[in-house]
Amino acid sequence: MSSFSSCQSVREARRVAIFGGTHGNELSGVTLVHLWMKNGTEIQRRGVETRPFITNPRAVEKCSRYVDTDLNRAFTPENLSAPADGQLPYEVLRAQEINRMFGPKGSPDAYDVIFDLHNTTSNMGCTLILESSKDHFNLQMINYIQKALAPASCLVLLNEHPLLKYSTARSVAKHPVGLEVGPQPQGVLRSNIFESMREILKHALDFIELFNEGVEFPPCSVPVFRVSERVDYPRDANGNIMAMVHPNLQDCDWEPLNPGDPMFQTFDGKTIRYQGSGTIYPTFINEAAYYEKQQAFVATRRETLSANAVRKA
Amino acid sequence: MSSFSSCQSVREARRVAIFGGTHGNELSGVTLVHLWMKNGTEIQRRGVETRPFITNPRAVEKCSRYVDTDLNRAFTPENLSAPADGQLPYEVLRAQEINRMFGPKGSPDAYDVIFDLHNTTSNMGCTLILESSKDHFNLQMINYIQKALAPASCLVLLNEHPLLKYSTARSVAKHPVGLEVGPQPQGVLRSNIFESMREILKHALDFIELFNEGVEFPPCSVPVFRVSERVDYPRDANGNIMAMVHPNLQDCDWEPLNPGDPMFQTFDGKTIRYQGSGTIYPTFINEAAYYEKQQAFVATRRETLSANAVRKA
Repeated sequence: MSSFSSCQSVREARRVAIFGGTHGNELSGVTLVHLWMKNGTEIQRRGVETRPFITNPRAVEKCSRYVDTDLNRAFTPENLSAPADGQLPYEVLRAQEINRMFGPKGSPDAYDVIFDLHNTTSNMGCTLILESSKDHFNLQMINYIQKALAPASCLVLLNEHPLLKYSTARSVAKHPVGLEVGPQPQGVLRSNIFESMREILKHALDFIELFNEGVEFPPCSVPVFRVSERVDYPRDANGNIMAMVHPNLQDCDWEPLNPGDPMFQTFDGKTIRYQGSGTIYPTFINEAAYYEKQQAFVATRRETLSANAVRKA
Repeated sequence: MSSFSSCQSVREARRVAIFGGTHGNELSGVTLVHLWMKNGTEIQRRGVETRPFITNPRAVEKCSRYVDTDLNRAFTPENLSAPADGQLPYEVLRAQEINRMFGPKGSPDAYDVIFDLHNTTSNMGCTLILESSKDHFNLQMINYIQKALAPASCLVLLNEHPLLKYSTARSVAKHPVGLEVGPQPQGVLRSNIFESMREILKHALDFIELFNEGVEFPPCSVPVFRVSERVDYPRDANGNIMAMVHPNLQDCDWEPLNPGDPMFQTFDGKTIRYQGSGTIYPTFINEAAYYEKQQAFVATRRETLSANAVRKA
């Protein structure tokens, strides 16, 4: 039981957005948001205004990740304050527009919660992505979702790295939540992935409703995988990829990779082993969209966060 | 044993091409062809000139299926004879160029064999695609490959349908062979898919070498799945998709679908069942590239082809 004094007061979460199509070829979110724009009954909760929103409609139209540049890396202070002179890439203009509608980022006027719906080609299952280990509202929400989903699992990727963290669309909100479900190829809609995403959203919105009604959530602990490093494919002198993810590592997102374990396989059959110090937990293994970002997988370390008790201020 | 009189004489296959990147985001073929362009030792065979070739370099550069239009539908008589006036789509110009280099299609000067390397997001495993049930050279090659691969399997899709057959890049050759391996997302290279494709090519080239050396191949039978129909996703009045491939059908390429079996699942959870007459064998189920072609899967029927004995003329 939490004592009264340790309970953190958090502003109620009246305004919630659900972003789909931040990457136009990740079809679970695109389809769910389109569905809910037509009929929002499923996402309505007492005391919550939930707004489904297509963030990159031109990319959705083309069924491509983006048009000019990755929208989910575009919410930098420089981009958001750049003079909109028509010379800017489409996604930068769109980031400014989204920031006006759902932000401004970092201001009291910003939306309370933004869920941003993504798919990955990696075998990551259901993943919630956090940007801060100190957002106790989000940690409590994740704990609620995990309990509601059990025995199915939903893991947590914490991207709080000072250099590797990127400027997401959801970062406009006070409580940004990324939802990443896979494996699903780009441009494909799979019913199992679609229904998993839908169920997580249901529980997340239930949590917000309960929170707004004044329910107090006692302290809890949340196991997370903290981003520690990005690992590129082995490349030759010209920068061309010369090895593939090793079959022992492929599809093994979240499983331990120990020093000496096979990591890559060259095209002539040689094994390249992990040479780092200590166990890592790779994820986003062989994600299609990360070839251009020179990233074969993200290395993470496991830790457990403590969430304070929270209740509505 | 075949009697002498039933043995079909076929011209030797001196000139062989291996096409990769006909679709620029199908990375197994792109990678293998790039590899073999640097070092062709692996694909050299006595008495065979084997040429690895990137068919759509601009699409490969962009890692997209195509630039203007699908190259693998572009080899129509109209396109191949159109005046090259600079107004033509890139892929039509490229088809003309490929036809000059490896054809002309239907002429005695055309290449003997073209292998065209493709990936699919569908769970099809290793598939050889034929355009004619009467090409006994190809049927014998397939029989050879299947025996060499056993106990692993390699199925055969026969696309000889008068309306559904399309104008492929490989159709330029006397003996066109499509090689389709999956599941692999677009823009991803998986080692298991890569190695499967590589092994099939090895056996195919071995067959050609033996054939050119005068080995006679006795009559055999080849089970195939003949394309009978294309089935679209259920759509609403505006043409928008309103259902997904049913979880019972997803990933079940080549398995029987009987009248009354679940086929699609609507977004509100209703099951749409197969209402046709008789058993079909769906394949290319939920292929990413076929959403724009309004195709959820290809229906096939099983049959067994008889291949004549063949030997070099």
